[in-house]
Amino acid sequence: MGQFPINIEEAIEWLASFGGELDGGVTRTLYSQPWKEAQQALKGWMEDAGLLTNYDSIGNLFGRLPSPHPNAKTILIGSHVDTVKSGGKYDGAFGIIAGIMALDFLKKKYGQPAINLEVVSFCEEEGSRFPLALWGSGMMTGLYSYKDIVDIKDSEGISFETAMMAAGFVNSEYRVRKDIQTFIELHIEQGPTLEKVEKSIGIVKAIVGQKRFRITVKGESNHVGTTSMKWRRDALHGAVNMIHDLYEIAKKSDEDLVTSVGQLFLEPNVPNVIPNQVQFTVDARHPNESVLRSFCQQFSQQFQEHAKKKDLNIHVEMWHEVQPAQMDNKLNEIIQNICTSSAISFYRMNSGAGHDAQLFARVCPTTILFVPSQGGISHSPLEYTSTKELETGLEVLIQILHQLAY
Amino acid sequence: MGQFPINIEEAIEWLASFGGELDGGVTRTLYSQPWKEAQQALKGWMEDAGLLTNYDSIGNLFGRLPSPHPNAKTILIGSHVDTVKSGGKYDGAFGIIAGIMALDFLKKKYGQPAINLEVVSFCEEEGSRFPLALWGSGMMTGLYSYKDIVDIKDSEGISFETAMMAAGFVNSEYRVRKDIQTFIELHIEQGPTLEKVEKSIGIVKAIVGQKRFRITVKGESNHVGTTSMKWRRDALHGAVNMIHDLYEIAKKSDEDLVTSVGQLFLEPNVPNVIPNQVQFTVDARHPNESVLRSFCQQFSQQFQEHAKKKDLNIHVEMWHEVQPAQMDNKLNEIIQNICTSSAISFYRMNSGAGHDAQLFARVCPTTILFVPSQGGISHSPLEYTSTKELETGLEVLIQILHQLAY
Repeated sequence: MGQFPINIEEAIEWLASFGGELDGGVTRTLYSQPWKEAQQALKGWMEDAGLLTNYDSIGNLFGRLPSPHPNAKTILIGSHVDTVKSGGKYDGAFGIIAGIMALDFLKKKYGQPAINLEVVSFCEEEGSRFPLALWGSGMMTGLYSYKDIVDIKDSEGISFETAMMAAGFVNSEYRVRKDIQTFIELHIEQGPTLEKVEKSIGIVKAIVGQKRFRITVKGESNHVGTTSMKWRRDALHGAVNMIHDLYEIAKKSDEDLVTSVGQLFLEPNVPNVIPNQVQFTVDARHPNESVLRSFCQQFSQQFQEHAKKKDLNIHVEMWHEVQPAQMDNKLNEIIQNICTSSAISFYRMNSGAGHDAQLFARVCPTTILFVPSQGGISHSPLEYTSTKELETGLEVLIQILHQLAY
Repeated sequence: MGQFPINIEEAIEWLASFGGELDGGVTRTLYSQPWKEAQQALKGWMEDAGLLTNYDSIGNLFGRLPSPHPNAKTILIGSHVDTVKSGGKYDGAFGIIAGIMALDFLKKKYGQPAINLEVVSFCEEEGSRFPLALWGSGMMTGLYSYKDIVDIKDSEGISFETAMMAAGFVNSEYRVRKDIQTFIELHIEQGPTLEKVEKSIGIVKAIVGQKRFRITVKGESNHVGTTSMKWRRDALHGAVNMIHDLYEIAKKSDEDLVTSVGQLFLEPNVPNVIPNQVQFTVDARHPNESVLRSFCQQFSQQFQEHAKKKDLNIHVEMWHEVQPAQMDNKLNEIIQNICTSSAISFYRMNSGAGHDAQLFARVCPTTILFVPSQGGISHSPLEYTSTKELETGLEVLIQILHQLAY
């Protein structure tokens, strides 16, 4: 028919046309018009590939290649259809596209599987329209409920529920599925690791835990020229000593630990006045919860000591926390063997960003596979992965599903 | 008559009423209506005290107690009548008030001096309306000229010259006076030193030199979670190491050195993105030019090394520079002896802020005396010095002038 894409390259451009922008960016936020059109188009493509389609009550879209066995469990594969504002063409999209293409291939070549194979296009993962992330997988895994969207509005004041209803979905009882046996996500890395180590596939050991803090340091404003160094309560001097030590402590941890100060505000922020207040954020991540907790305790304690030494007040507030999620070892071994026997290079690594897979990991064997991101760039119109790299990802996914379901 | 103040306390409140605000602050910027009214009122008070008054062509106001000798030189005393926006009642004002009251007292008690005594109310020092400071003393000392005000406008787009003409002064040839033999300024300290050391009079050794820098550090933005610490070009990490070392190097200098980072901007300043740019200011001051220059060279070199180590780009720009001004040793000895014999406690110190005296120091023997500032607070409605402390300052000034001019 020519209506639907016939290869990965075409499929990426086709899906990116829903919410596509002049600079190559894509904006497809939850329940928006481009979002609706993208889900409807994907539904059409799934049906064209011979899959049984349906939406759940919040807008997750499914395409099923059923087993003939009535009590068969389901292997779910897929990713999210929503994007950040001015995001790229690959984030989320690739996982859905690869899922549909894998099932199309397997159906044509091997017919019906012994275990149901199902591709999902999650309605939402990014948290880019409403201040809530992982909505699609959160509801599917029973970890979220409708309570989580009460009182949530977008930047234009539209409530979550109003937007959902406008897109044709209603706040009805959500039925958590019991048949999901395995979840597999294929995603771009969104970081530079695979490119740096020159490997084709990232096999994810864990999605890191995150702790985010807001630190407020208070001292006293004074005239720069007339206040001797020894009488100052310089909030920035204190904050700089804290951040300096944050990185020193990080150096002593293992190389899975990442930490960063991304935001910092000074007051009054005038060249000839000693700052009386500094507010800064600390983002710390590690795949092991106890390592992460110990790191955060160490730097918090060091911050308190610096504040005491310089007669400053300090307030440390943790405003965001995500537990690490361990990917399934057995699944990863299967994938590693597939790569080895197909002479596809791989790298075992952690995911520093969050993904739908982190919620499925709590309820069933789950893993996530990465393909390289050029320059590590993501959440940008410059996001790019070559067709060859995408094809390698699809090839591995097909082999996994063949091995698990036939 | 009751029209003019009869003591210091009254005089401070009286002068503060021109441009006075509800919260006790004073806004009296150059050539504004409150400025004109204040100068006119001061002229009236000077005349009431028997002084010969005149304005120069830019609006500096003089009140003269003449010597009978036709070729006598002049000892000039005074300070500036302009204020910062929402400034205090004492900054500048006290030096003028004390000058008028000293001359009034000396005239009544001792009659005509051997050397002319003259009080000046400088039109401008703060740079708070136009981006040019020390206008009054700059013209008087011949260090400034009308060229310095070409193309200068205030925040409302009014040119310097237009404002000057509207206040009744014209851009005519400025005649630099040749008769000024000595300049003495009495001023509030604007810092906490006298209060901390519990002394009544600060005898200023030097007004510090200043160098102000703007440092731009450039790295690369990346996702906090997906970029290993070893692959980052984190502009803030680099900047923090630089600022940390700035303070360490300062510690190794003598205690006259002050330095501060008052302003800092991060980009993109988002919690989960590694900063790609940090821009910050460094303000460094010391009474000795070579010590100051050496300090600045040291930290600049250290900054370059940090940038190199972390593969960051750095640009160091010096955007403001003031040479140190040495106060006159002989004058200071006279003042010290006066304090000692009158049992008035004093402290020899530097001035970390700029003053009209720093320009006079280049053309004639000059000094500046401080009285304490409560809590070191200045440029604020909370600026305060007790009447007793002001009276001590006036008493010392009277004794100096008596000793020098009679």
